[in-house]
Amino acid sequence: MRGDAFDPGCPTRLILDRIGDKWSVLVVLSLTDGPRRFTELRRLIGGVTPKVLTQTLRAMERDGLLTRHVFAEVPPRVEYALTPLGLSLGKPIQAITDWAEENVEAVVAARARHDGLPA
Amino acid sequence: MRGDAFDPGCPTRLILDRIGDKWSVLVVLSLTDGPRRFTELRRLIGGVTPKVLTQTLRAMERDGLLTRHVFAEVPPRVEYALTPLGLSLGKPIQAITDWAEENVEAVVAARARHDGLPA
Repeated sequence: MRGDAFDPGCPTRLILDRIGDKWSVLVVLSLTDGPRRFTELRRLIGGVTPKVLTQTLRAMERDGLLTRHVFAEVPPRVEYALTPLGLSLGKPIQAITDWAEENVEAVVAARARHDGLPA
Repeated sequence: MRGDAFDPGCPTRLILDRIGDKWSVLVVLSLTDGPRRFTELRRLIGGVTPKVLTQTLRAMERDGLLTRHVFAEVPPRVEYALTPLGLSLGKPIQAITDWAEENVEAVVAARARHDGLPA
């Protein structure tokens, strides 16, 4: 079965919400090169709070996008890694982020024009 | 200047929020073939309320992604059309939506496994 994002009853909608969330986007991009620990993710993803990062990682684990691996060390080491499903999301996520980074000036200028402020 | 989505001070973050919003995604996809009226958009985008559709269209107009054109007819006809900037967003948006529609079953199954429910 293929989903239909225009159908309000289709779970594709819920998935669009998840993968469109900016924190999920940044987690996917942070893990495309390999597994990382919580503290590394927190440092990479500027401005994320521990609470929000934890919630994002749990939701993505539930969605089958990443795995959480606890190594039996003292202190315990916990690593997050993308699953094949999560890795497959990397390319479209990168395309959206590239668009945003390339067009940020145009959007900020449009907002300033609209609000009557100097760009 | 190119933005940096990992920098909390960069407006790329705000833009990711906007273009990641599922209603904005569906508006872009609905307008890629040409301008449409409010009632057409409302019919196409299942489940959207008039209030939320109005808010989404206003935010996208402010961001320079679409234009609102009022035709001097009785009753007045109002059409929404993507700008070149909005059109350029069509391709990455389509890639994200394709991913969501293609992988909806895998994500729903992962959620069911995680929650201990039959898939």
